Amino acid sequence: MKLTIKDIQQAHKRIAPYIHRTPILQSQLLNKMMGCELFFKAENFQKIGAFKARGGCNAIFSMDDTSLQKGVVTHSSGNHGAALAWAASLRDAPCTVVMPENAPEVKKAAVAGYGANIQLCQPTMAAREGAVAVLIQEQGYRLVHPYDADEIIVGQGTAALELLEQIDQRLDIVMAPVGGGGLIAGTGIAVKALSNAQVLGAEPEQAKDAWLGMQSGERLAEYSPNTIADGLRATVGVRNFAVMRETVDDILLCSEERIIEAMRLIWTRLKVIVEPSCAVPLAAIMDQPEQFQGKRVAIILTGGNVDLDGLPW
Amino acid sequence: MKLTIKDIQQAHKRIAPYIHRTPILQSQLLNKMMGCELFFKAENFQKIGAFKARGGCNAIFSMDDTSLQKGVVTHSSGNHGAALAWAASLRDAPCTVVMPENAPEVKKAAVAGYGANIQLCQPTMAAREGAVAVLIQEQGYRLVHPYDADEIIVGQGTAALELLEQIDQRLDIVMAPVGGGGLIAGTGIAVKALSNAQVLGAEPEQAKDAWLGMQSGERLAEYSPNTIADGLRATVGVRNFAVMRETVDDILLCSEERIIEAMRLIWTRLKVIVEPSCAVPLAAIMDQPEQFQGKRVAIILTGGNVDLDGLPW
Repeated sequence: MKLTIKDIQQAHKRIAPYIHRTPILQSQLLNKMMGCELFFKAENFQKIGAFKARGGCNAIFSMDDTSLQKGVVTHSSGNHGAALAWAASLRDAPCTVVMPENAPEVKKAAVAGYGANIQLCQPTMAAREGAVAVLIQEQGYRLVHPYDADEIIVGQGTAALELLEQIDQRLDIVMAPVGGGGLIAGTGIAVKALSNAQVLGAEPEQAKDAWLGMQSGERLAEYSPNTIADGLRATVGVRNFAVMRETVDDILLCSEERIIEAMRLIWTRLKVIVEPSCAVPLAAIMDQPEQFQGKRVAIILTGGNVDLDGLPW
Repeated sequence: MKLTIKDIQQAHKRIAPYIHRTPILQSQLLNKMMGCELFFKAENFQKIGAFKARGGCNAIFSMDDTSLQKGVVTHSSGNHGAALAWAASLRDAPCTVVMPENAPEVKKAAVAGYGANIQLCQPTMAAREGAVAVLIQEQGYRLVHPYDADEIIVGQGTAALELLEQIDQRLDIVMAPVGGGGLIAGTGIAVKALSNAQVLGAEPEQAKDAWLGMQSGERLAEYSPNTIADGLRATVGVRNFAVMRETVDDILLCSEERIIEAMRLIWTRLKVIVEPSCAVPLAAIMDQPEQFQGKRVAIILTGGNVDLDGLPW
């Protein structure tokens, strides 16, 4: 069934008691540097430090008690795992998270901190999905996919829903980074239903499977991303790609150097801690500034779970 | 003349069009770790990235056009210099800032960015004051002292005024770090006039001139601080000490290691960039947790101007 803004509004009602209504941040200096007016939706202040709390919470609170008590399982390079672990703990449900060995330590610690079990695997999509399949078959766990699931897509869309309520001026563009596509798909549905703004995804050049798919019209099932933006190392999902084709106007790319530069700019100008993934939309603006001049641009800052001992500068 | 809450309220009216009403931040995880409810007034989001914008703005907007056009001068290890440069630029007034050679690069760049002249000097109070005295005599500039001045004290007190308006629950304790004493003196006046909360200053053990002075009843005129908290390397001023004796209940100390640990905690839990000075009150709580158990404690986060290439971990 096709997802609509109503699904996002219902999800928002469902999760509102548990999540933060995160603020919109602005910096006059950043606006001046970029030649446009920027509004940052600060999901780094969200529960578990990332927007993924929205999708995870919506998935858990959409389940009935019986299937929930059998336990849930997911694979995640980090924030979705923490989100599911956190949301499951709110309903006392057993939770197992399959994580790639190279996931940042801080993200492993967060998952463990919410009381979930961690199972490590090779850092490939095949290995992740294989490990999850075994757990589902042997343990009877229910899969909560990190992005390729309706409850996740509409859950993540609640960030854009709030953003549109919070900014009472006309927006020209809404941007979000693209990893598996949960956030950008939910954002696309919300923004197209409630405004005339363009929806732009942003991807690292070294993780451009969404960009390639949108160009060719066909989703890439196999792709090896290699980017500092650890939250974007997933390949766009089937449901996500279908929604993106209908609601996303374009995907913009950026270099790894720009991601680090943009991340530093956000740290120094907005005074907030954000992950490299958060900096990808701003990096894309810096790499192709012309189309943003004089525009009102909202950017979703996706998360703030950074390993302070492994900063890229 | 004795400063009162009315002076702070007037200052707030004067500067409100130019400054940010900064938000109050909270973290349930931090509260749990500390055993008390913490409210952080996020002055790292203030204009120029620090509460000093309040005092600088109040001083500049308290002056008449004639004396302002002759120019203003100050000495500062950083944020007050940026604050005065920024405030002077709002009224197109010439501004010179005497800075110690060892001030962080990021702070020198900020002062220059607001169009002020920088004059470097040796990193001692005597050298700073000497350089300023020469400029006053030779150029006719008006001194805006970084802390030992009525306009500055009441300007900085507006942070606590806002904080008491923003937190609609009873507070047990309000804390601020102590450098020259502008913030703690203004905070003391505001909090004692408007609430029953205790006012606690916090100082690094290696910069404990306020603590020594409060113990003996006599201000230390000479003291060589040696702390990572670069915003607290000043010695408490005459006016500041007099106000502190009347309004501050106690000064708590903390070690350098705790400052770094508390700074990391604020970064990772609140997801905001703060200077080492900001972390001093939290570090003091960590070093003597007993008296804070179960209390409601407000802490002023003083600023976020950190050199990202010189982090202490």
